[in-house]
Amino acid sequence: MGLVTISDIRAAADRIVGAAVRTPLLRFDDGLWLKPESLQPVGAFKIRGAYNALARLPEDVRARGVVAYSSGNHAQAVAYAAKLFGVPAAIVVPDTTPRVKVDATLSHGAEVVQVPMARRESRAAELVAERGATLIPPFDHPDVIAGQGTVGLEVVAELPDVAEVLVPVSGGGLVSGVAAAVKALSPATRVIGVEPELAGDAAESLRVGALVRWPADDRARTIADGLRAEPSELTFEHMRAYVDDIVTVSEEQIGAAVGVLARRARLVVEPSGAVTVAAHLARPSAGPTVAVLSGGNVDPEVFARYL
Amino acid sequence: MGLVTISDIRAAADRIVGAAVRTPLLRFDDGLWLKPESLQPVGAFKIRGAYNALARLPEDVRARGVVAYSSGNHAQAVAYAAKLFGVPAAIVVPDTTPRVKVDATLSHGAEVVQVPMARRESRAAELVAERGATLIPPFDHPDVIAGQGTVGLEVVAELPDVAEVLVPVSGGGLVSGVAAAVKALSPATRVIGVEPELAGDAAESLRVGALVRWPADDRARTIADGLRAEPSELTFEHMRAYVDDIVTVSEEQIGAAVGVLARRARLVVEPSGAVTVAAHLARPSAGPTVAVLSGGNVDPEVFARYL
Repeated sequence: MGLVTISDIRAAADRIVGAAVRTPLLRFDDGLWLKPESLQPVGAFKIRGAYNALARLPEDVRARGVVAYSSGNHAQAVAYAAKLFGVPAAIVVPDTTPRVKVDATLSHGAEVVQVPMARRESRAAELVAERGATLIPPFDHPDVIAGQGTVGLEVVAELPDVAEVLVPVSGGGLVSGVAAAVKALSPATRVIGVEPELAGDAAESLRVGALVRWPADDRARTIADGLRAEPSELTFEHMRAYVDDIVTVSEEQIGAAVGVLARRARLVVEPSGAVTVAAHLARPSAGPTVAVLSGGNVDPEVFARYL
Repeated sequence: MGLVTISDIRAAADRIVGAAVRTPLLRFDDGLWLKPESLQPVGAFKIRGAYNALARLPEDVRARGVVAYSSGNHAQAVAYAAKLFGVPAAIVVPDTTPRVKVDATLSHGAEVVQVPMARRESRAAELVAERGATLIPPFDHPDVIAGQGTVGLEVVAELPDVAEVLVPVSGGGLVSGVAAAVKALSPATRVIGVEPELAGDAAESLRVGALVRWPADDRARTIADGLRAEPSELTFEHMRAYVDDIVTVSEEQIGAAVGVLARRARLVVEPSGAVTVAAHLARPSAGPTVAVLSGGNVDPEVFARYL
């Protein structure tokens, strides 16, 4: 299976200029810098991969539109990227999706198709077939991984002596891209994935050297709702090649990190995005460290609980 | 009275590299970009002016230390800048200052001198005389104004066709520097100051063409506790020369803007920092607009009220 290369990631970086923000590194304490992807237009790093994937489509293919099935940050990112390209986007969401998320997707000009949960993938496939549209997967695609990898490119460019990069892990698109970039540019830098204990399937998989599947109901227990997906073969290959370790954090540590980030870094970060700071606060520092904050889309009620 | 020039501001920009963050411009809506100075190390733009003022001192003078009287963002900025230079800082605060603010100042390695409110200025003057230290004023100094002006430099560099820049006004150091930079680089861009209605002394002063003094008790009514100071002769001269207008916003509009920024921009912004977005939401857009968010130091209880 072909892994994403540093030249794929460099090319993605050129493509996403103007669509994604080059987020600053913010000093948090003596040993930690934050990479706040919560400041992206859709509130998450997902715009990098989605935009790169759309940019890579031939113009006539892209013009027929794109489809995604997701109710989270990836859906927003595909809708936003499609708007920037002026092409139609259809987002298939479960009919249980909260109104506020549907409205956010609609606000980017996308069509929202609500179906029973079990019909998501098949309805998306139908739309692709009917319209000649292209499915943009949330992580299982080299163009998406290359786009997310631009985070790693920026980290090493800004902090060349970085010893460790902490990255949230769910489906693994972000950590795959970041690790591919970091290891190419600075092989001595350690890339550490972070998962909730309650959705620690990737940590277990890396430990045993093969994909271990956890039931979706188990993975759904964590408050970090962006970290409930599981790696694909493609992302797991990247992790095996480039990720040094995956550590886990408790629900309590995640909540505390959300609060610390609000009070000390003045950032609204979702629980999924705060796992890296939770890990940093729980382990000895190995030198200059960067914590990637993957997103900031959190219900105000949930957020207020941790202030 | 000599006004700060664009070359003063350019020189300040070179000096503050590494001490202040080059904050990104974040797209907020079709017409508005945010300049989130809340992401600076001390949570406010103040580090720019304080660091520039310290950098401008002769080394032997700086080594004798610096003094500031303030319990707010300026105190943190002077303490932090002194730490970066490895010189002592004494911060004189009223004995009513909340413990959390005292601790924040102590955490930067500064000495905190607590005195009755009425003794602040005189105690600071004594420390200056006793130690040969230098007083760093919060806004009434060209080096401080030039440092704050680097915000304007960055805005025009990133968004050359900016039609309007909205800037909070208190003592006027920030708006003076920003306006001096913007008018030098892009004379057609309008610079609009924003004040709370309840502390609208600068707006009134600009309208009548002379400094109008409001009683401190009146200015203290606003929730925007960073905007309760009044302009000096020096900052007012800059405003008369470079600021197109100063508008005011209500307490209700300020609170609503804090909430909108948390939910839609994922930023923790203090009421003083949110007045510019409050103004934007209340007036017709004149084209591409930048709202400077001056700081993010807000009590969690106050912040939670607006979520």
